[in-house]
Amino acid sequence: MSNHILRCITCKKEFDPKPGLYYCVDCGYIMGTLEVIYDYESIKKESAVKEKKFDKKASMYQFDFLLPAKLKSQLDEYVGGTPLYKFDLLGIKDVLIKYDGSNPSSSYKDRASSIAINRALEEGNDTIFCASTGNAASSLAVLNAHTEMKTSIFVPAAIPAGKLAQLEISGAEVFAVEGTYDEVYDLSLELGLKKGWYCRHAAINPYLLEGKKTGAFEIIIQNDFNIPDYILVGVGDGTVISSLYKGFWEFKEIGLTDKIPKIIGVQAEGIPAIKKVFDKGKPYSTISIHGKTIADSISVGKPRDVIKACTYIDASGGFYITLTDEEILDSITELGKLTGIFAEPAGAVPYGGLKKLIYEEKISKTDTVCLVITGNGLKDIKAVEGVIRTETISTKDLEKRFK
Amino acid sequence: MSNHILRCITCKKEFDPKPGLYYCVDCGYIMGTLEVIYDYESIKKESAVKEKKFDKKASMYQFDFLLPAKLKSQLDEYVGGTPLYKFDLLGIKDVLIKYDGSNPSSSYKDRASSIAINRALEEGNDTIFCASTGNAASSLAVLNAHTEMKTSIFVPAAIPAGKLAQLEISGAEVFAVEGTYDEVYDLSLELGLKKGWYCRHAAINPYLLEGKKTGAFEIIIQNDFNIPDYILVGVGDGTVISSLYKGFWEFKEIGLTDKIPKIIGVQAEGIPAIKKVFDKGKPYSTISIHGKTIADSISVGKPRDVIKACTYIDASGGFYITLTDEEILDSITELGKLTGIFAEPAGAVPYGGLKKLIYEEKISKTDTVCLVITGNGLKDIKAVEGVIRTETISTKDLEKRFK
Repeated sequence: MSNHILRCITCKKEFDPKPGLYYCVDCGYIMGTLEVIYDYESIKKESAVKEKKFDKKASMYQFDFLLPAKLKSQLDEYVGGTPLYKFDLLGIKDVLIKYDGSNPSSSYKDRASSIAINRALEEGNDTIFCASTGNAASSLAVLNAHTEMKTSIFVPAAIPAGKLAQLEISGAEVFAVEGTYDEVYDLSLELGLKKGWYCRHAAINPYLLEGKKTGAFEIIIQNDFNIPDYILVGVGDGTVISSLYKGFWEFKEIGLTDKIPKIIGVQAEGIPAIKKVFDKGKPYSTISIHGKTIADSISVGKPRDVIKACTYIDASGGFYITLTDEEILDSITELGKLTGIFAEPAGAVPYGGLKKLIYEEKISKTDTVCLVITGNGLKDIKAVEGVIRTETISTKDLEKRFK
Repeated sequence: MSNHILRCITCKKEFDPKPGLYYCVDCGYIMGTLEVIYDYESIKKESAVKEKKFDKKASMYQFDFLLPAKLKSQLDEYVGGTPLYKFDLLGIKDVLIKYDGSNPSSSYKDRASSIAINRALEEGNDTIFCASTGNAASSLAVLNAHTEMKTSIFVPAAIPAGKLAQLEISGAEVFAVEGTYDEVYDLSLELGLKKGWYCRHAAINPYLLEGKKTGAFEIIIQNDFNIPDYILVGVGDGTVISSLYKGFWEFKEIGLTDKIPKIIGVQAEGIPAIKKVFDKGKPYSTISIHGKTIADSISVGKPRDVIKACTYIDASGGFYITLTDEEILDSITELGKLTGIFAEPAGAVPYGGLKKLIYEEKISKTDTVCLVITGNGLKDIKAVEGVIRTETISTKDLEKRFK
């Protein structure tokens, strides 16, 4: 028997889970994203949960009482349990940094892919698919390589060779399609669902968010149940930020905590789709804009999880801000110099966001803050080549300098 | 008081540790590399060691009874404790894979850098330096970014922009010197030592190997004290392979195990310096050859740890083999497809080595084997761009294919 039901975020209709059910058909695939709802009252009473000793380095499956899948493989044992560091930054003592670059495929996306793979295997699927130019695809390919199930990835033909190579090395079947990301995404959804393949599109399949929410659980247990006042995170499609809210909300719901932090989404000024919808106010609606940013992972004009990302962040008392590409590059280098953490552009934006909010006096130096860094800087070396300031020196001149 | 002494591997002279003592001055800096020797008889009797419960995910500092430094920073807590996976590969059941790509800077080198930084801080140094084109430098820059101590890195001016950017982002002072790697290495050693800076050259400073040996300790405890028959690892300068021997030897010496595996070094056919010295036989001597390989991290013509790397591997009953660049590329893709593990070229060679030795019937399918994967494939995306086989497809043709 399933440990959860599904509920449409717009019309509130409830569904029993079944294979192939990804969204509320009445409301459509953007407005009708589903929430996975557990029996929180029962979980609250379970002594195994109330008295559970959490482990700061265990995988995310230590939270399986609030997950729609169980740990299945040895790779799963290394998904989650990522570092929570504390650094004095920008005048604030002990800024928390949740660093997800040490997951098996070096990004936050592994939390979602692991759940998708385990559910797909349980349902007996022979293929799992997604459209992605980046972290979601490589995460799926890496974590699924060792199973019997096939991985199919749809990418725009124009993606960088390095990213394509990574997918091929993990044995995925790659369709490099002539078209924009949005076109490829929509087409993959149509074709994949027609084939009956398992869908790893985080903003459509509600189970993906369930994996991602474990980042919030880990922030709580790794900080000894002290909930920060603010969480900052980069936002593209809106799934990670939604998942963080749900994680904090669920731990409160089952009585393990009594507070939800204000969650602040950081977008790129060049393509701030969700911020536009959020600032316009309720009722939240879909949006499709054009624009660009160097922060590849949050360069999204047609965000697929916009309804959750607005509804949840409003409920948390949070809001959205933007950074220019210049501010994003500065975020990478300043964060690196102060902490050693090398973040991909979209991973570094929470640092720039914090800097801006301190400057604007929206966050004070006595507030407690957590930055969520979603990906390893090695994911996108190209983006940072512009920061180089070093000049070449001859051996002779070097010797002179050391005289 | 120090918990160890230093002993020259060639003339066996013993030294008390002191700042600035890196090698036996009588024998010179290649022949005179020092071994760090602990009081094994005393450690053997310590009940805290005999009865110690090891933790499969704890940092390498859980082994501090055999280390020359203690855990100092929150980053240290995430050095080591990396996955040991088991996969059925090439007809062998449960091949062990030690994967060090999940360390803070995504390579095995963090084990060494962490020790170097902590000793340098204890000795009150204001600067720590190394010459490197790759993992050693980025590891040092990343782990030292948050301390008061400065990082100085000497690189050949011709290194790729991405690698340079990474170093600058971590706040290191970078000297991009006109010259070959070997020239820059020797010059950096001269200048850095003259300045009295702390030396992070793994093949010279004997403490670096002490960090690296913890990889062997982890293989032992993560495999529940079952020692494999063979260990395979890529070899450039010779430090990692030497450290693995020392780790297995020390656990035997203090009575926790009773076996040392045969250790097999895998080099690139284009530049097999240590293999040449090893095959020529004792007494081992220095060597300097020219050559090249796509496996950047093991492209070393003048290996600085050649004496240890030959002496120890001979003592283990192991030997050296080589792979062509084509075999190295195949190793990356085959390993990726079978396991999802994306290794840098030098990290993937143990897989190719195993394949070759099974084919040559030097390893049989009933032997137990561990492959040591030293770095994340994201470190060198350029090297694998040649594997791409995917062809571009139009949306129309894609739709036809899915009819």
